[in-house]
Amino acid sequence: MQGSIDTLKKIIAVSQQKQPADFILRNARVADVFSLVWANADIVVSDGFIVAIDSTRSFEAIEEMDAGGRYVVPGLIDGHIHIESSMLTPSAFGDVLLPHGVTTVVTDPHEIANVAGVEGIQFMLKDAEKSPMDIFVMLPSSVPSTSFEHAGARLEAEDLQPLLSHPSVLGLAEVMDYPAVLSGDEGMLSKLLMTKEAGLRIDGHGAGLQREQIRGYRAAGIQTDHECVTADEARDRITQGMYVLIREGSAAKNLHDLLPAVTPHNARRFLFCTDDKHLDELVDEGSIDHAIRLSIKAGMEPLQAIQLATLNAAECYGLSQKGALAAGFEADFLLLDHLELFKVAAVFKKGVKVAEHGRMINATETQTDCTVRIRHSVHLPTLTVENLAIPLPQGAKANIMEIIPDQIVTNKVVEKVEIINGAFVQNMERDQLKLAVIERHHQLHTIGLGIVKGFGLKKGAVATTIAHDSHNAIVLGTNDEDMIAAVQALQDMQGGLVVVHDGQIMASLALPIAGLMTKVPLEEAVQSLANLHEAIHTIHPKLDFHLFLTLSFLSLPVIPSLKLTDTGLFDVTTFQHIGIDANTNEKADH
Amino acid sequence: MQGSIDTLKKIIAVSQQKQPADFILRNARVADVFSLVWANADIVVSDGFIVAIDSTRSFEAIEEMDAGGRYVVPGLIDGHIHIESSMLTPSAFGDVLLPHGVTTVVTDPHEIANVAGVEGIQFMLKDAEKSPMDIFVMLPSSVPSTSFEHAGARLEAEDLQPLLSHPSVLGLAEVMDYPAVLSGDEGMLSKLLMTKEAGLRIDGHGAGLQREQIRGYRAAGIQTDHECVTADEARDRITQGMYVLIREGSAAKNLHDLLPAVTPHNARRFLFCTDDKHLDELVDEGSIDHAIRLSIKAGMEPLQAIQLATLNAAECYGLSQKGALAAGFEADFLLLDHLELFKVAAVFKKGVKVAEHGRMINATETQTDCTVRIRHSVHLPTLTVENLAIPLPQGAKANIMEIIPDQIVTNKVVEKVEIINGAFVQNMERDQLKLAVIERHHQLHTIGLGIVKGFGLKKGAVATTIAHDSHNAIVLGTNDEDMIAAVQALQDMQGGLVVVHDGQIMASLALPIAGLMTKVPLEEAVQSLANLHEAIHTIHPKLDFHLFLTLSFLSLPVIPSLKLTDTGLFDVTTFQHIGIDANTNEKADH
Repeated sequence: MQGSIDTLKKIIAVSQQKQPADFILRNARVADVFSLVWANADIVVSDGFIVAIDSTRSFEAIEEMDAGGRYVVPGLIDGHIHIESSMLTPSAFGDVLLPHGVTTVVTDPHEIANVAGVEGIQFMLKDAEKSPMDIFVMLPSSVPSTSFEHAGARLEAEDLQPLLSHPSVLGLAEVMDYPAVLSGDEGMLSKLLMTKEAGLRIDGHGAGLQREQIRGYRAAGIQTDHECVTADEARDRITQGMYVLIREGSAAKNLHDLLPAVTPHNARRFLFCTDDKHLDELVDEGSIDHAIRLSIKAGMEPLQAIQLATLNAAECYGLSQKGALAAGFEADFLLLDHLELFKVAAVFKKGVKVAEHGRMINATETQTDCTVRIRHSVHLPTLTVENLAIPLPQGAKANIMEIIPDQIVTNKVVEKVEIINGAFVQNMERDQLKLAVIERHHQLHTIGLGIVKGFGLKKGAVATTIAHDSHNAIVLGTNDEDMIAAVQALQDMQGGLVVVHDGQIMASLALPIAGLMTKVPLEEAVQSLANLHEAIHTIHPKLDFHLFLTLSFLSLPVIPSLKLTDTGLFDVTTFQHIGIDANTNEKADH
Repeated sequence: MQGSIDTLKKIIAVSQQKQPADFILRNARVADVFSLVWANADIVVSDGFIVAIDSTRSFEAIEEMDAGGRYVVPGLIDGHIHIESSMLTPSAFGDVLLPHGVTTVVTDPHEIANVAGVEGIQFMLKDAEKSPMDIFVMLPSSVPSTSFEHAGARLEAEDLQPLLSHPSVLGLAEVMDYPAVLSGDEGMLSKLLMTKEAGLRIDGHGAGLQREQIRGYRAAGIQTDHECVTADEARDRITQGMYVLIREGSAAKNLHDLLPAVTPHNARRFLFCTDDKHLDELVDEGSIDHAIRLSIKAGMEPLQAIQLATLNAAECYGLSQKGALAAGFEADFLLLDHLELFKVAAVFKKGVKVAEHGRMINATETQTDCTVRIRHSVHLPTLTVENLAIPLPQGAKANIMEIIPDQIVTNKVVEKVEIINGAFVQNMERDQLKLAVIERHHQLHTIGLGIVKGFGLKKGAVATTIAHDSHNAIVLGTNDEDMIAAVQALQDMQGGLVVVHDGQIMASLALPIAGLMTKVPLEEAVQSLANLHEAIHTIHPKLDFHLFLTLSFLSLPVIPSLKLTDTGLFDVTTFQHIGIDANTNEKADH
């Protein structure tokens, strides 16, 4: 928005060369993402907007810079992320993304909403205002994700309605609860209708959905999918009228599988996203810039990849003044040192250089006041060994979650387990460890217990309050004492990540903002993550996957096959709780 | 909008085959305008929406039809028209367009707004509701077009503001007053800002504007241009971030000149429009269907032309449920007898067949109540010969409007004229006729007089209340008596078109709705136009251009070079009134 009449008047006057501009980036090779061509021109900026792409070199400005003939492209847009996955607040997150050239993100504050509801969303919106990056919000559509667990909040249509008019809110976030959509659940349909009536967008979540189910999604008005994992799925979504967000994050890496679906005719319906990407990987390899690099390396025309990352994303989310370099667009652009390698030399936001050579020029002030509910969100009981006991008859076979390293799905396996004094005990040789999910929002003291294999942990325990989607505490242990100590550490830190061995905290990162996000500066957070990494390796020297990531999805009861919530073991295939004793469940199994 | 929760629930249920559909068009060759491919499938409809494009032939419906393998494409969209140019009301207009496959139009009720202001716009909105065609409205931005004439109304930002929330209003119509934009006129900027703040669209009018001026337009947030006449202009608009509407109407035919600008990379930024197209031509050759035929004939891939006419237009105007055939889109589609010739066999609107073989199945009831201001809009004085006298000294040279047949521009020429008794007299040998523009809105009795050449009329007079943009009465005559009779006829009919000879009305068409639109049924209107055509030829046997069209633009003081308003002769080049006597104006001329 060009703001006031006075600003608009000035912008027009500068465009007509009646007043000097604020800034000119001269002698640039400017991306035209409308026609996929390059133009040699000066980029002229006034009041944060581009007022001319001028090939006559005739404008004057208060400040200028010579691009030396280098490539300049629009600021990149991430179409779908969960900022909380970075463990950073939105304002801190901006300082990580901007140096990589991402000037706009569309975030779904689904994690904090599960902890703190509307208060959590409001915190994200408020904190986002501090960042020079543009942070738009889609309202979480599925909080809690199921009724088979205790989350911190429940969001109905009437809770979300007042937020729809917020200028940073673009619509309804990934509608994960597809059974609710396809069965015509009124609560879900109310959210969809309310969003349509506001003229806003609805994101989908078509993970594994068949053509027929996507049809139901589309009939319901859902417009995007970022869960395609094959080119055929992507082609189907495009044909059915969806935008496809090509995801390249930490856990899910779909870019190489989806690129073959992009043709010159349908390219305008594709964009990029990261969905979930961890801090260390964001810092090291980047975000949407990384997706562009991979696409170019895979053979895509650089301008085509840039169009996906800019204009297409802007159009998908109705951001009519973003995603291109032309008069009237916001002056968000990147100066590149190298096109094919997509090396970002400098990042301009609203015409001001905010980052250079991978670093912010000025760090953003990131301290935003939190409400009590957000800064004191962890309410764990003091555990005893008895609380963690899994009684089982001698010789029992148990329903066990078998993890697949770095994946969010599990296998359900049935195995004999070691029983002592009528209860399960961890057995590291068999790799049968104990898992507990403990309600932490409302002091309900509900504890779900289960047996897990595949982690290969040999000693100690690890715990975190990042446990999708309800974000209760989840703790994995080779012995109960270390598990109890780890949970106590989470309580003391008000959430976070912790590694415990022999009752001692070996490393930790406090996440006192809703038990999800850190308050410490970026460098300190990165160092803490490195310490955690090291500590885990001391108790699991052969670890070759992301243990905390894999752990944090074991509580998500919408992803197959066997998961654990604070209300117990959950069979996602039959969508019901089951017991650990496989014998008593044999009927249910068949 | 899928309306209520109950409707949405039903649509989803039908999409999942839990309930029978309303209608299935089986065995169709369905256009996929997202990927530009064809698919063999059934089109399944519920409650006006497509719920499936089904290739498995497994759906059931209450009613069905076999397409016999014929092509089916989305309903066509005209991105910019002035319905009043057809002399039909919106509801009657729909019945002309629907048989040609146009299911949605975006109209600028600029003409009636100049006569009756907000009341006029409201009449159009209200009458539009009767049509099965979707008629969206852009709010006229420039009423009156200049301050050098008397229009029926003046529309400021505060007059338009309440209309922005009307569900059929998509934004601000063609911003013609580019000097107001580029000079930062606050009234104009208020209209622009108000529209942006409502999240709506702003159409441009870049006729003859240079790259630098378009830059100012863009800086002001203007998003489209339908006035390109060369491929280079079109390329410039695309690069500057505008959508380009390729116009093919009655007066302006730009399609062949613009097609070379369309490439596979930039095609998604082009759409079609007619702008102004006359009733007889709409009936005979069609509208956007005609543009598709011409494009295919010129070598464009049929699916590409169809994409311009459907998806691109829908995206340009934010109509997210239109322009494509997929679940969740409105069930507007055309069954074709022939693809390349684009022969429309049947037209379905919201899943119901409304037209077949070029005719409506049921005529729309078109009588909408008019306010007094609209049905009694003509207030002309009773003229005398004295009122029409143009006093000139003997031997004077006169500033004369020279028309260019079928064009809206004129030349300014200076010639000697015949003077009798100190006043100009028409001379048919020299082709120097008299033109008068007479205020008709507020009984101001202002009369602008001028001399015109190029019409070649030999006897009689012609007059109309269609006189852009203020729509005062305009009368052209070979003698004053016939001119007076013609003006009297306009008063008696409450506006319209009339041909007079020897004091007798030879033919006429009453346009009693704001002096612009007829109340009679389509067939009767077409017959009256044929009678007028014949009558003109009896007083001008060699006529080979559209006399009324050319006449109706002689009063438009924003189009070069010399025009006539009710306040006098107007030099568009210097943007000021001038006298008829060229001698007294010599200083101003140089």
